[in-house]
Amino acid sequence: MSIRFAVLGAGRIGQVHAKAVSSVQGAILVAVADPVESAAQHICDSYGCDIRTIDTILASADVDAVIICTPTDTHADLIERFVKSGKAVFCEKPVDLDVKRARKVVETVAAEKGQLMVGFQRRFDPDFMALKKAIDDGVIGEVEMVTLTSRDPGAPPADYIKRSGGIFRDMTIHDFDVARWLLGEEVATVQAAASVLTDPAIKGLGDYDSVNVILTTKTGKQCTITNTRRATYGYDQRIEVHGSKGSVSAENHRQSRIEVANADGYTRPPLLDFFMNRYTAAYANEIAAFVAAVANNTPTPTTGLDGLKALELADAALASVATGQTIRLS
Amino acid sequence: MSIRFAVLGAGRIGQVHAKAVSSVQGAILVAVADPVESAAQHICDSYGCDIRTIDTILASADVDAVIICTPTDTHADLIERFVKSGKAVFCEKPVDLDVKRARKVVETVAAEKGQLMVGFQRRFDPDFMALKKAIDDGVIGEVEMVTLTSRDPGAPPADYIKRSGGIFRDMTIHDFDVARWLLGEEVATVQAAASVLTDPAIKGLGDYDSVNVILTTKTGKQCTITNTRRATYGYDQRIEVHGSKGSVSAENHRQSRIEVANADGYTRPPLLDFFMNRYTAAYANEIAAFVAAVANNTPTPTTGLDGLKALELADAALASVATGQTIRLS
Amino acid sequence: MSIRFAVLGAGRIGQVHAKAVSSVQGAILVAVADPVESAAQHICDSYGCDIRTIDTILASADVDAVIICTPTDTHADLIERFVKSGKAVFCEKPVDLDVKRARKVVETVAAEKGQLMVGFQRRFDPDFMALKKAIDDGVIGEVEMVTLTSRDPGAPPADYIKRSGGIFRDMTIHDFDVARWLLGEEVATVQAAASVLTDPAIKGLGDYDSVNVILTTKTGKQCTITNTRRATYGYDQRIEVHGSKGSVSAENHRQSRIEVANADGYTRPPLLDFFMNRYTAAYANEIAAFVAAVANNTPTPTTGLDGLKALELADAALASVATGQTIRLS
Amino acid sequence: MSIRFAVLGAGRIGQVHAKAVSSVQGAILVAVADPVESAAQHICDSYGCDIRTIDTILASADVDAVIICTPTDTHADLIERFVKSGKAVFCEKPVDLDVKRARKVVETVAAEKGQLMVGFQRRFDPDFMALKKAIDDGVIGEVEMVTLTSRDPGAPPADYIKRSGGIFRDMTIHDFDVARWLLGEEVATVQAAASVLTDPAIKGLGDYDSVNVILTTKTGKQCTITNTRRATYGYDQRIEVHGSKGSVSAENHRQSRIEVANADGYTRPPLLDFFMNRYTAAYANEIAAFVAAVANNTPTPTTGLDGLKALELADAALASVATGQTIRLS
Repeated sequence: MSIRFAVLGAGRIGQVHAKAVSSVQGAILVAVADPVESAAQHICDSYGCDIRTIDTILASADVDAVIICTPTDTHADLIERFVKSGKAVFCEKPVDLDVKRARKVVETVAAEKGQLMVGFQRRFDPDFMALKKAIDDGVIGEVEMVTLTSRDPGAPPADYIKRSGGIFRDMTIHDFDVARWLLGEEVATVQAAASVLTDPAIKGLGDYDSVNVILTTKTGKQCTITNTRRATYGYDQRIEVHGSKGSVSAENHRQSRIEVANADGYTRPPLLDFFMNRYTAAYANEIAAFVAAVANNTPTPTTGLDGLKALELADAALASVATGQTIRLS
Repeated sequence: MSIRFAVLGAGRIGQVHAKAVSSVQGAILVAVADPVESAAQHICDSYGCDIRTIDTILASADVDAVIICTPTDTHADLIERFVKSGKAVFCEKPVDLDVKRARKVVETVAAEKGQLMVGFQRRFDPDFMALKKAIDDGVIGEVEMVTLTSRDPGAPPADYIKRSGGIFRDMTIHDFDVARWLLGEEVATVQAAASVLTDPAIKGLGDYDSVNVILTTKTGKQCTITNTRRATYGYDQRIEVHGSKGSVSAENHRQSRIEVANADGYTRPPLLDFFMNRYTAAYANEIAAFVAAVANNTPTPTTGLDGLKALELADAALASVATGQTIRLS
Repeated sequence: MSIRFAVLGAGRIGQVHAKAVSSVQGAILVAVADPVESAAQHICDSYGCDIRTIDTILASADVDAVIICTPTDTHADLIERFVKSGKAVFCEKPVDLDVKRARKVVETVAAEKGQLMVGFQRRFDPDFMALKKAIDDGVIGEVEMVTLTSRDPGAPPADYIKRSGGIFRDMTIHDFDVARWLLGEEVATVQAAASVLTDPAIKGLGDYDSVNVILTTKTGKQCTITNTRRATYGYDQRIEVHGSKGSVSAENHRQSRIEVANADGYTRPPLLDFFMNRYTAAYANEIAAFVAAVANNTPTPTTGLDGLKALELADAALASVATGQTIRLS
Repeated sequence: MSIRFAVLGAGRIGQVHAKAVSSVQGAILVAVADPVESAAQHICDSYGCDIRTIDTILASADVDAVIICTPTDTHADLIERFVKSGKAVFCEKPVDLDVKRARKVVETVAAEKGQLMVGFQRRFDPDFMALKKAIDDGVIGEVEMVTLTSRDPGAPPADYIKRSGGIFRDMTIHDFDVARWLLGEEVATVQAAASVLTDPAIKGLGDYDSVNVILTTKTGKQCTITNTRRATYGYDQRIEVHGSKGSVSAENHRQSRIEVANADGYTRPPLLDFFMNRYTAAYANEIAAFVAAVANNTPTPTTGLDGLKALELADAALASVATGQTIRLS
């Protein structure tokens, strides 16, 4: 029997997930909710489903699972309400910008024995999965040092930055999750540096645009994260993992695989410059994994705890910048 | 209004095209025909449509266009029957193994003012399209020399080889079409060499497994084609075009974008090893282009004439091998 | 007129520099000193020169310049003595393991108006020079983030580690110098993490084998340095510099430029695994630059101050590890 | 005891070989001959040797071996005279532009039991040697298809072309030799196409600038050669060998190993654009191999027969172009 879905929030990422649900075997899109009717209508037109309010969906017996793509400040409440109603929940990161609130959500989900998967799509990117598999297969021996490079083509609008919780909670949070995934053990200490180099307006918003972070685990494994909000050559997303027997890395995705040679040299196209086409396959795989977990009633591959842990790392990075201290996680 | 399709032949490539039709905006899959009911049923189950006989489809008022994926020896007749019935036709290559018959089909289509698109999917591969665009944009100046490398992971079964018309008509034919597309002018002379190097059984079938061809146009532009039926590293599909101002090339598709480094060196995965996942995007783009041509009643991007010309080059290559002569096309 | 050289210390690096002097136009190798006669003799046999004691060389009117390749703990004294004797001095890094002593040397050289070049050969590697030139030509705009990856194939012997001053003063010191060279402004703060992951014996020696460092300048430019003492794939030496208009990076040097493709994938050879053949051209360029500076009586491209600054960064990194603090440089 | 050399002809390539002799252990440069005194003097100044006439060198008891770098039309006579005088001979390709004359030279050398090495430096390029070693080590199994791409940055002057014997004898000849070296068996048939695409003046000289050749051995192994006289991106020199178990290829040499990324894409520098710096190491290795053969009185790695065979292939290619036939070698 197919899992029946509703998508809450029909914005950019809601559209992506609606499409994923529609193309995954074993999942049916039943309803969508969004105060902006044209957005909701667009999903209905594309994939065929009802428009309902969130409250109606909460009460809908024909909805087994929801995908929360609403604004961040609604995530925690919605997760709790839907988990309590017995529905499986997929929620875009973050659970909440406040660690305490996020922790409470995780506790609630546990108490309810609910299913909560948090949207860290990078874990489902085919190349990153191949990299992880190589590690798990022992190809590089014991993981020692992880190097993550994430650079956005450009900064989001000021309005977005204001509500984002800052670069560590909005952008680096993906790297924090990838770091935990690849290090294979929890982070013990965090050191971070942060500057504003691309646009002074970002300073005015109390945020940074260029950051480097060092994570160290209890056994001494290390991870560095390099982020910037401006890369002229596209959306730069690289992973390199160094181990006792070797190293494994994943290349970027270019706009095409051609190369032009002339008197100026050999030129390959810039990178894909938008997270949505860079991670198209990842988003689809992610939803497929959620569908499988709900269908089989197995643990979701990412959980609220993953969301919480990544958020704690973001807070630690901020504290390191503020205090000039290496922050030790409890 | 959507174009209503029927797929004739529900084998491997029929499945691919049925999927493409189902996902292209403006196209609806109405019917499928195949004597093997389970194959036809599989398409119905996946995409929703009727099973009908070919004759029924020919008479169906609710079918605007057909995609012919039946065995090669049925192509010519089916094209003629469906074009005469006023339906748009997409046909997998080749139109026919016999040049005269293929020429007659082209004439019939012209007389009927019908629409016939022949399936040369490489022209619709995103990377090859980017390469072609670079040429058309003048990036490499005047095209002078084209180098095509196509290597299959392994030879098809003996039964297939027997009916295939031989390596030039079955495999090189794609390169002949790409050569014409990229050279931008017709081929004047053909020189070819052919050997059996991978499996003596292929010799017994009167075919070759390793061939090289030089094509030359009237103005002296040249193209080399290298084909073999065995490549341990996957499905090797490369294009390089050298021009007066520079060169443009397209890389292969690997199984993933990871690289492992250890004492043995730096290793990237083998290539995709099947034409269907190598050309997934190409097949979808190809059908989308056909749908657009039918919807707008514009010329299809490839035609029966393209099928005919490629076949003439295959025959010329065979003649060159047989006679030790440079074959001049009329 | 040619500059007449003596090489002090005929070990591994002394041999390299003797060869460089012999092949640089405008330089003549006159003498070599080494308590191990066979080592000195080898240089004489290869390039033709006298064996003399250090004291004799100090008094030799036919020696204009010396290249100090003796053990680290002799560097400071030798620099001072030779500078006072009016000879130009090239000294392998470090000037001294003690910052105060190194500072005194710098002051002495300044007081004597002497010429002291410190051996940071990476600045003279053709690829790194091309990278620096691209930055200086404005190709990437304003430098924002530098990423340095240096991995040794294996740890040096325990005896060497004991006398080396530790990984930051022995290995990272090259990266500290490259960081200053590329950032184009002095480092303001240092954060470092250090572990022992490859060999517990290194812990017994009070050293580390795996370190990450973040350097930040006053204006917020950042540099990360990743070092490890074990890389199975060779001597890993990469630079990437990200700027406001783009990025520039330098690739590693492989053992050859071949690539093998088979069912296991596409494999290129491991990296050169020894700093001497990796930096052959750099060592030659370095000595040529020293010869030019001496011949023209111009400032040397690197100075004792560069040696001192790099050492201060090493000490700051150690302090950061020890205290868990971001260390601010005065 | 060292082998004592004379260099005949102090032009561009004479300078290269003089330098090689000077730096190879076991070889001494004794004399140079050139009617242009300044050229000869330059070699004397750089490496220390006498200027003598060719006749004097022929009679010089202190000369064991000569390197012939004089104009092509003098090669055959000089080889014969020096071989007869008992000296070992290294001669730049070609032995002669006329196959009969070249054959006679080979016979004379054989009759005299002399040593004649012909200058096919590509066999001594470190990367091509690594590629050959991989083949000899069985890494790719049985060799099946060789692909050689050689593109010059620009055509030589008209005067040079006139005397060169045409593109097949001057440029492709290197590829013919490499083909024989890599195929591991003699060529049975030759097919060639040739055009003038870069400069009509070349047509006026009776030559071509763009050629493709297919070589086939008796057992059906094939080799394609692609040549052009104009490549805007530098001196393009690639080899790819496809075998039963895999493939091996050798990359080009760029001006440096940097890569710049910006909104236009990822750009690596053009190739080295001169055969002399592209093949610096090859020329040195080549002379070292000659010195070793002379010193040990062993067969030289390339011989007059290699020169003859390559020339025969050039003639066959010309005949194929002229007659439109596949040319069979006797």
